[in-house]
Amino acid sequence: LSKLPIIEAVGDYVKENNSLFCTPGHKGGAGFMSSLSEGFVSDILKYDITEVEGLDNLQNPEGVIKTSQELLSKLYGSEESFFLVNGSTSGNFIMIFSSFNEGDKILIERNCHKSVYNAVIMRKLEPVFIKNTYSERYNAPLSIDRSHFSDILKNQKDIKGAVITYPNYYGVCCDLEGIISECREANVKVLVDSAHGAHFGINKGLPESAVRLGADMVVMSAHKTLPSLTQTAYLHVGKAADLEKIRFYYNSFMSTSPSYLFLCSLEYSRFYLETKGNEDYRRLLETAKRYRDRINGLEHVHVVGREDIDYEIDATRYILNVEKGYSGHLLLDYLRKRGAQAEMSDGSNVILILSPFNGEEDFERLLASLRECDFEELKADMQEAVSYGIPSLKMLPHEAIDAGKESISFLEAEGKVCGESIVPYPPGVPFLMPGEEINKKHIEIIQYFIDNGVKVLGINENKHIVIIRNGCAEVNRG
Amino acid sequence: LSKLPIIEAVGDYVKENNSLFCTPGHKGGAGFMSSLSEGFVSDILKYDITEVEGLDNLQNPEGVIKTSQELLSKLYGSEESFFLVNGSTSGNFIMIFSSFNEGDKILIERNCHKSVYNAVIMRKLEPVFIKNTYSERYNAPLSIDRSHFSDILKNQKDIKGAVITYPNYYGVCCDLEGIISECREANVKVLVDSAHGAHFGINKGLPESAVRLGADMVVMSAHKTLPSLTQTAYLHVGKAADLEKIRFYYNSFMSTSPSYLFLCSLEYSRFYLETKGNEDYRRLLETAKRYRDRINGLEHVHVVGREDIDYEIDATRYILNVEKGYSGHLLLDYLRKRGAQAEMSDGSNVILILSPFNGEEDFERLLASLRECDFEELKADMQEAVSYGIPSLKMLPHEAIDAGKESISFLEAEGKVCGESIVPYPPGVPFLMPGEEINKKHIEIIQYFIDNGVKVLGINENKHIVIIRNGCAEVNRG
Repeated sequence: LSKLPIIEAVGDYVKENNSLFCTPGHKGGAGFMSSLSEGFVSDILKYDITEVEGLDNLQNPEGVIKTSQELLSKLYGSEESFFLVNGSTSGNFIMIFSSFNEGDKILIERNCHKSVYNAVIMRKLEPVFIKNTYSERYNAPLSIDRSHFSDILKNQKDIKGAVITYPNYYGVCCDLEGIISECREANVKVLVDSAHGAHFGINKGLPESAVRLGADMVVMSAHKTLPSLTQTAYLHVGKAADLEKIRFYYNSFMSTSPSYLFLCSLEYSRFYLETKGNEDYRRLLETAKRYRDRINGLEHVHVVGREDIDYEIDATRYILNVEKGYSGHLLLDYLRKRGAQAEMSDGSNVILILSPFNGEEDFERLLASLRECDFEELKADMQEAVSYGIPSLKMLPHEAIDAGKESISFLEAEGKVCGESIVPYPPGVPFLMPGEEINKKHIEIIQYFIDNGVKVLGINENKHIVIIRNGCAEVNRG
Repeated sequence: LSKLPIIEAVGDYVKENNSLFCTPGHKGGAGFMSSLSEGFVSDILKYDITEVEGLDNLQNPEGVIKTSQELLSKLYGSEESFFLVNGSTSGNFIMIFSSFNEGDKILIERNCHKSVYNAVIMRKLEPVFIKNTYSERYNAPLSIDRSHFSDILKNQKDIKGAVITYPNYYGVCCDLEGIISECREANVKVLVDSAHGAHFGINKGLPESAVRLGADMVVMSAHKTLPSLTQTAYLHVGKAADLEKIRFYYNSFMSTSPSYLFLCSLEYSRFYLETKGNEDYRRLLETAKRYRDRINGLEHVHVVGREDIDYEIDATRYILNVEKGYSGHLLLDYLRKRGAQAEMSDGSNVILILSPFNGEEDFERLLASLRECDFEELKADMQEAVSYGIPSLKMLPHEAIDAGKESISFLEAEGKVCGESIVPYPPGVPFLMPGEEINKKHIEIIQYFIDNGVKVLGINENKHIVIIRNGCAEVNRG
């Protein structure tokens, strides 16, 4: 039995020396190898310091951290910006807790990140779900259903805010500008989970940043696309934000012993964008386009572009779509065997995150792997990943969390009320929330996930699911 | 204007090449320099990976993370143990949220950590404060007032739990065994903030670990005393814990993109304790004793030991007490100038955190600095840091958070109700909570902190304090 199982497993993975088409954006350290970060890179363990005189205090910055956050704010054009050392997760919690009060009714995307769901539960909000649109052709979620969104906004006058994902995990962008303008008129706050959009706006070939589009608050993972360490993120707030509340929740959802490695890398990635971002992303977009065209010359596989769908898309991300009858999950496994680590897969697609620190050799390796792929090996019954619909809400999510519960085989859960979030991971989008009724279709999909090796949080190793004991009355909703 | 203010400031600090008597416990990387961690140390940026196949998932561990957490649990003797990547802060929130329901009345120490206060506010608990005892001789907080604790437990039958700090920032230990046994009888849960006690119990010369003493839940900072990166911690839970609730709050208070650098170092420090802890701490205790005796041969300064006070104490921490008339804060500054970085200071004391990775040369430097110190330079009016008492609670803390507020000069705040936590940092112990009345003594103490360069969270750069607008009625308390 190994005494250092994690360190050894990571060591083995590092030795595979894969081309990294996944987070973090620094791609195994390549993003830090500029002369500007030499001390930080060569002496990194020495940089892991505590808050001493002259090094400021993240919870109440008055010195170098304050200055650095001001530079961040200036680059993105926010009213104020904050470093986050507990990921976009903490940013989503801070946004939601500081913007809404208990009982507030808010619009959220059915395909939002798990942390948004958890924050809705803890803040005791009433979620109104916006449907997602799906591409039948690519068997993938596209964006929010704009007419459904407008209908809710028109018909429910007590909506306090909306939490929008921009872009989604696939790099697909909703019409955020239009959404913000519609929400402004209805006096509805717009909070944006832009975990995958920290690089937006740095070059004109990229979608515009959520901050520039005028969102009230925006969270961005720094590590997902920029050269920053994993678990780092930015929070940007606009003029209307309640800074005192933000400060309270900021200090609650983040460690009082913040990592200076994280702070240094958050500073570094802002500096990187400022000094090299425009040119590096121009080059990346050009390379991405070039290899996309070559991949699209192959059979069975296609990189989805903005001309294929009705939405703007981040061209520094590949949605590698496989023909019907083949499996995205099996393609991800195949690429890993060939030394290309993708970010995630669904039934029909593999998502690759590109960064300026992916070299030409990474793209060559990807292209060669796809060219040499025996697609016969990737054949599988394809599950329609599309539109689970919005399940029936039997209890408010936070009530379900505190209700009496029991655990049963998920195969026997039809008609029961779900007691926990059920989240296939990645992408970490819950498909059942506490308080929602489990139907036959849900059971089939869970079975499909398990059969295809997708991790499903909320389903334990005995394939049990937590349900509300004794059922419960339907929520009386306006 | 610097474009990389944080990186440059940390770089300058690293170049000072101080003897590190502060957190983190790895002391500038020295703690990692074993052959066992070679790959991790030399390739550290490559180890910053995302959750890929084979590397498990922190939010639902089934592989190497699960195994590693089981090894952690076994070492400490818990029912179950968890890695925390958002510091003891997240651990305190998880403990408090999973153990109590809204409105519950709980006992907390007046000198508990800020994160405990914040969790009490967010969980909407009713805090009943336990007084602290102070040493007049050393002008330092010692422990909780045991008779006050017992009185409350006897007279208030609706107490649901107690949050105990063990040890405190000074290394002073309360009678945790007695407290746990008293709470067991009263059916009161005991949660322990053992941020500074991760090394306890590894050698018989150290106090016993809070887990072995039978606490219901225990949080330990791994980075404070062990060779682990800053912002890492452990959560240990006992048999009675509600694992489903813990899992929900665990997944809410921590990033869904956890740092593998943190996970690797959390695993490494457990392994270190297991294989070398007993012997290394035996040696450290011996060294600490030897230099303590030599320091105690000097004038004006004294390392407080367990024979000086009525409490058990962690002998791997120096409470460097200066004679009345001299300033602890000025001594900390002096030591920094002489190349010895202490952890924190109060009016009369400097706290040094020792670890097995402090070499003989660190102790020699400390001793020489103290021997050569011109104590005339450290003379200052001494502020009694002792017993602020328990302020009068005018509103429950969570009500105060949501009340209308304004900001005024702290000098004019006498009789007003505080709207925010006021926290001198370090040690991060709030001395006024939202909802408490500000009196003349508080104003004097805030002035003293400012005059002595102690950072006070809640007092802004214009020396303003946030108060409740229009005052408020006194809380009607049972």
